[in-house]
Amino acid sequence: MIEDKDQSRTHISQLGEFGLIDHLTKNFKITNKSTVRGIGDDAAVLDFKDNQLVVTTDLLVEGVHFDLSYMPLKHLGYKSVIVNLSDVYAMNAKATQITVSIAVSNRFPVEALEELYQGIETAAKLYKVDVVGGDTTSSTSGLLISVTAIGELESKDVVYRSGAKPNDLMIVTGDIGGAYLGLQVLEREKEVFNVNPQNQPDLDSYTYIIERQLKPEARKDIVELLKVLEVKPTSMIDISDGLSSEILHLCKQSKVGCDLYENKIPLDPQVISTCEEFDIDSTTVALNGGEDYELLFTINQKDYDKIKGNPNFTVIGFMREESAGVHLITRAEEKISIKAQGWNALNN
Amino acid sequence: MIEDKDQSRTHISQLGEFGLIDHLTKNFKITNKSTVRGIGDDAAVLDFKDNQLVVTTDLLVEGVHFDLSYMPLKHLGYKSVIVNLSDVYAMNAKATQITVSIAVSNRFPVEALEELYQGIETAAKLYKVDVVGGDTTSSTSGLLISVTAIGELESKDVVYRSGAKPNDLMIVTGDIGGAYLGLQVLEREKEVFNVNPQNQPDLDSYTYIIERQLKPEARKDIVELLKVLEVKPTSMIDISDGLSSEILHLCKQSKVGCDLYENKIPLDPQVISTCEEFDIDSTTVALNGGEDYELLFTINQKDYDKIKGNPNFTVIGFMREESAGVHLITRAEEKISIKAQGWNALNN
Repeated sequence: MIEDKDQSRTHISQLGEFGLIDHLTKNFKITNKSTVRGIGDDAAVLDFKDNQLVVTTDLLVEGVHFDLSYMPLKHLGYKSVIVNLSDVYAMNAKATQITVSIAVSNRFPVEALEELYQGIETAAKLYKVDVVGGDTTSSTSGLLISVTAIGELESKDVVYRSGAKPNDLMIVTGDIGGAYLGLQVLEREKEVFNVNPQNQPDLDSYTYIIERQLKPEARKDIVELLKVLEVKPTSMIDISDGLSSEILHLCKQSKVGCDLYENKIPLDPQVISTCEEFDIDSTTVALNGGEDYELLFTINQKDYDKIKGNPNFTVIGFMREESAGVHLITRAEEKISIKAQGWNALNN
Repeated sequence: MIEDKDQSRTHISQLGEFGLIDHLTKNFKITNKSTVRGIGDDAAVLDFKDNQLVVTTDLLVEGVHFDLSYMPLKHLGYKSVIVNLSDVYAMNAKATQITVSIAVSNRFPVEALEELYQGIETAAKLYKVDVVGGDTTSSTSGLLISVTAIGELESKDVVYRSGAKPNDLMIVTGDIGGAYLGLQVLEREKEVFNVNPQNQPDLDSYTYIIERQLKPEARKDIVELLKVLEVKPTSMIDISDGLSSEILHLCKQSKVGCDLYENKIPLDPQVISTCEEFDIDSTTVALNGGEDYELLFTINQKDYDKIKGNPNFTVIGFMREESAGVHLITRAEEKISIKAQGWNALNN
């Protein structure tokens, strides 16, 4: 993918480190009142007045988290912002600033980094966050992106993982499993391409799940919607590491148990049909797939009427006493203990 | 260095990603009032009340910024914190929180990462900053550390690079050139070791400069001292990239020129003797060496009496109109235009 772009390559060293940062960030605009000073000094200066802030950081590594043979750099830049914003929204906060650092080997010309930063800029614009800092350096191999995101909220609004209570309802946003299946399709096409580079893949029946993998969105809208509905979740977490592992985190930190109902897990029709095609169990994919940047939260039952019927939300479970354990209730009404099998970057 | 520690290696995958973070950060204590919630949720929660905050981030890459054949992991952890805190202090702020992300290849056992985190913990304790987040992932090769530091200050105290005025005095803290020379000594010993591994190096006459390279300190004390002296610099920058390149940044952003006096540049006796031994010009080392985590700032002349005679400060120059340009006034009273030759990670 990178190798196709040889027409007009500018070597990174032609710009130098400071020139490169200036060049890549020159179009970035400041839109948040809380950003007093952005890029260009030893540090950015922010002012949140009476509000609290949240801080989160994520590292994306080539060959571990992404494969440039099917991940366009623009999408990668976009996704690297999204994965961090998702964590900000999971605190019930408004995302306001990010810093972006990249380590990059010499095989990337400046034009490739421009594409990456176009994706970053697009995400920043759409989600209204300011890029206020970063670092650009060389790596001995591959590309690595480190993003730190900052958000703000009133202290009364913060939602931790630890607030779920027995009898609360467990809700997930959107649908899940798509991102993992999208990756399976892309991996398969890469194999086919390696055998026969002339083959033109027909990916029409996978557009939704491929987009879930390559260009995910973070649920900014959910934080805004919950405010409008006047619902404050008792606990919340983003489910980027897979539903089962995130449910276990939430239960552990809230010191509760939970029954998750298999027949309630929201799946897109494309997820179901692709699972059939790949002959994998859709529940396994939903539980362990990961990379769906949806939110999982719990609410007090008294708030049920406020969220009932809203297409963004699916009630998938019921919180119990800690001693009851964490279980999946299958379609056959079997009770199976949930164990973490989430995507683990360190085992890959 | 890593390879020596085979006695009790624990493979990273034995702990898993979450287990690893828990394990590495279990001793970390929260000491700042502004840290409402640290590690353990989707994001940390901070509260600075009426204060503003500053945010800065730096990436350290194995083979580019450090060489593990002479950089102990504990020192590396320590230094990765210091380089970020230095940027916070350069804003005239108090450092309060950091996040630390690492990408690490399988060749590092858990014990090696424990050493790295011991260094991080030591720096955090000494500089009174809370480690509030991070990410741990695998890399396809080598070790990479990404640190983001946060600090706080009253809005009236912030010092940018852009406030220097003609006739201001230019001051540098401590002495410079040591870190670069320390690296030269270490590189030489590595060569010697490669030829003859039995050779025991005698580094007694280089202790200061080696420490400047391997275990630098950030000038937290200067921010506190300036407050006590009631001096607010008109501009400030940290000189990690070399004096000449930082002077150019400061002059460009302040739209001023400057005369830097060669005979005023503070050099440690060990820097002078090692320069003689290596047959390199000490002024060149001071101007272009880099990695001295000292502060460069300008003050209005009316504040001169307050800093006069303080051993932490050396007046090295005089700010001029922008049209006068940026010059070094040599010992022979020649005037030489200063050009950036600072250490550039992207060319290495």
